[in-house]
Amino acid sequence: MPTSTGHFRTGPFAGRTVAALGQDLRAGRATATELAGQALDAVAGLDAALNAFVTVDAGGALAAARRADDELAGGTDRGPLHGIPVGVKDLIMVAGLPATMGSRHFAGHVPDRDAACVTLLREAGAVIVGKTTTHEFAYGPTGDRSATGPSRNPWDPARMSGGSSGGSAAAVAAGMVPLALGTDTGGSVRIPSALCGIAGFKPAYDAIPADGVFPLSRTFDHVGVLAGDARDCLLAYRCLAARDAGEPPGTPVPRHVQGPAGPSGREDGGQARVAWLDPGGLFAGAARVVRSARAASGAEEEVKLAADLGRELRDTYTVIQSCEAVAEHAERLAGAPDLFDPELLDRLRAAAEVPGWRYVRAMAARERLARAAGELFGRHDVLALPAVPITAPLIDQRETELDGEKIAVRAALLAYTSPWNVLGLPALTVPAGTVDGLPVGLQLVGRPGREALLFEVAARLPLP
Amino acid sequence: MPTSTGHFRTGPFAGRTVAALGQDLRAGRATATELAGQALDAVAGLDAALNAFVTVDAGGALAAARRADDELAGGTDRGPLHGIPVGVKDLIMVAGLPATMGSRHFAGHVPDRDAACVTLLREAGAVIVGKTTTHEFAYGPTGDRSATGPSRNPWDPARMSGGSSGGSAAAVAAGMVPLALGTDTGGSVRIPSALCGIAGFKPAYDAIPADGVFPLSRTFDHVGVLAGDARDCLLAYRCLAARDAGEPPGTPVPRHVQGPAGPSGREDGGQARVAWLDPGGLFAGAARVVRSARAASGAEEEVKLAADLGRELRDTYTVIQSCEAVAEHAERLAGAPDLFDPELLDRLRAAAEVPGWRYVRAMAARERLARAAGELFGRHDVLALPAVPITAPLIDQRETELDGEKIAVRAALLAYTSPWNVLGLPALTVPAGTVDGLPVGLQLVGRPGREALLFEVAARLPLP
Repeated sequence: MPTSTGHFRTGPFAGRTVAALGQDLRAGRATATELAGQALDAVAGLDAALNAFVTVDAGGALAAARRADDELAGGTDRGPLHGIPVGVKDLIMVAGLPATMGSRHFAGHVPDRDAACVTLLREAGAVIVGKTTTHEFAYGPTGDRSATGPSRNPWDPARMSGGSSGGSAAAVAAGMVPLALGTDTGGSVRIPSALCGIAGFKPAYDAIPADGVFPLSRTFDHVGVLAGDARDCLLAYRCLAARDAGEPPGTPVPRHVQGPAGPSGREDGGQARVAWLDPGGLFAGAARVVRSARAASGAEEEVKLAADLGRELRDTYTVIQSCEAVAEHAERLAGAPDLFDPELLDRLRAAAEVPGWRYVRAMAARERLARAAGELFGRHDVLALPAVPITAPLIDQRETELDGEKIAVRAALLAYTSPWNVLGLPALTVPAGTVDGLPVGLQLVGRPGREALLFEVAARLPLP
Repeated sequence: MPTSTGHFRTGPFAGRTVAALGQDLRAGRATATELAGQALDAVAGLDAALNAFVTVDAGGALAAARRADDELAGGTDRGPLHGIPVGVKDLIMVAGLPATMGSRHFAGHVPDRDAACVTLLREAGAVIVGKTTTHEFAYGPTGDRSATGPSRNPWDPARMSGGSSGGSAAAVAAGMVPLALGTDTGGSVRIPSALCGIAGFKPAYDAIPADGVFPLSRTFDHVGVLAGDARDCLLAYRCLAARDAGEPPGTPVPRHVQGPAGPSGREDGGQARVAWLDPGGLFAGAARVVRSARAASGAEEEVKLAADLGRELRDTYTVIQSCEAVAEHAERLAGAPDLFDPELLDRLRAAAEVPGWRYVRAMAARERLARAAGELFGRHDVLALPAVPITAPLIDQRETELDGEKIAVRAALLAYTSPWNVLGLPALTVPAGTVDGLPVGLQLVGRPGREALLFEVAARLPLP
């Protein structure tokens, strides 16, 4: 199915939104069983080149699709995800399907319970097609270190998908499925979404429950969604966000989406105020990538980070993530180090040396940074910046050049996304044009409880 | 003023309670100025042998006492601490008085603002006599490592007062003042109170505000009170405990003292249910010390810790305290290590090596331990155990023998107190007899919001 120009964005769901598929299902123009069949065929046709999927559950998907069809026929409508094929990152437990976490440590591991977000997905009527490739233990933004092989970019399979939710991004970008779940600890939903030219949403911390998701760094881990456009991310988010305990399960718009109107009251008809956040305070970005994102943002106002804020955000991220990652892996690191990919092993060993007092300091810095960031939102509802400072590097590439200077690919990929994990803020990336034929992502960052503003802004972007 | 038997518990406030002094003041049998003068004379007479005080503020104390007298004469009564002489640990800021933290790093340091608890003390009409000796930076339970010299035990000045609030305990035990403030990170109020034969109360975490107190380990640090008996601790605590924001400052019984009646409703007339907590699960104790405390407790029921709980509490304490202490001292450790006492320097250097992932694990363990401890309170309101497994060792002693085995003095001193810092539970120690002429403390541990039960139990103890 690849085209003559070598791209693989040819699956049946390329350019078809969840919203449109839902209309087709309800108008009798499609059945869930047909959609599941199309997804399975697309995986069979495209995935040898992309390695987006680790496990395909044809039987389970078709059974779920038939149930979805029967329910719709019988008058039971579970909402916008009813009958929609979905990919689930291989770090998120689906009962009865292998969950390898991309690691030889979990070869053959089959959980017997669904993660909480998978339960919600099933309750919403979604059809789980299979498990998607993750960077080993989600510990890397490149998506090319995994016991199940690297996921590849549908725009050019010689290039990385980005990670760690690389398989989910590649599956959606290739049109194999219209929607996928991922996790995002420093950018792992947004980075591959940006590099693969789709939309990806990392909600506020703890907005989608993380029970049953293998942890990387517990205070940074977020469950997120990947789809062809921002509206589909919102539809999926609304089905997965934790509800207030008192709300009945059918409440259509959960607390985090609805949110309080907030001091600006912008939800009540006014336009959300957007500012461009000069990304230079975080990391040097490729000029054309930054320009492309900026043009897409349409923002007229600009804000800058205080001089030291960017560095402090980065250092805080690194220290906390290092200590929390080793807290999950210390026994594996001591007992079976050789089962880790060598790059991961090196990183974990270095992370194990970070002293505890630095973690204590980083946790205190995080509170200060949250206050400083709060001031950035004083006059604006949404901050816009690129999702990633560069376009997709080649698989296995570890250095790139920017303005004649060598920079580490990993540091570059994480630079614009990880601050919002430190701060726990909701952040959405949407496609914002291409540079040299590779996609660029525009990132919109907001405040918890005011997620709706991000989607409002995305909907009126002057996208190219 | 020492007696022929060599003890120094001969000050004017020995055996006089804050409650009785308050009656004397209001009945015209004493003035605050007289009490302050007695305290200053006692310090002048006794403190050369005990080193309980680092700084004496005769001028400030007499001025405050005159104001207290004028107010009482004018009909303004600030409550139970009005006109009462108080010592304040040299780790707690008193505006205009040196605060050395017992360290050469802060030689000559004079803060210009009162700590929040000192502000509350002044608002309650207390008369601050001076600053009391602290173990350097409060980083040790022996009280004998301080740039201002060791504080000594009024029962035998060759012996340690215990620490780190050693000066406060010695000052009260010697009768120089009827009341003192201390801090307690692993037992630093309760250990010296027990070794010096007085009462000491460590409230629930954050019950007395810690602003303006030099931190040792921020998630374990508690401000506490030391006095001749438990009732005086309660009087002082009521004046210092943080109030609900909505309460007027004069509200007599703050939230933490009053507390909810709780499921047992014991505050409503019934007797609090006390169980003896077998301390062997935490640490081996000297048989006669344990017997003395047990007899004093009068408890008939007994509970035991689950096998691993004691060790896990100790490990959790050590890891968290180490990392948090170095987070406060890293620059001093790097820039001017030789200003630390050598023992402290060794400890800080070892603490700086504790890896961050262990801190992450310890913080998670703390949550598990809190749940496990909650079960201990399932059928009991108050747990009773010794405050300290041994009686006061000699100054500079670092090892002692128990049943033929050598044990580290520091580990022994902390063993029964630090678990309640890990769990943030309120804990009171009261005198419980003597062994070989040295005092033993009985510790009562309860739940936040139900502090009143501890004092109810203390009031009906069959004390020797």
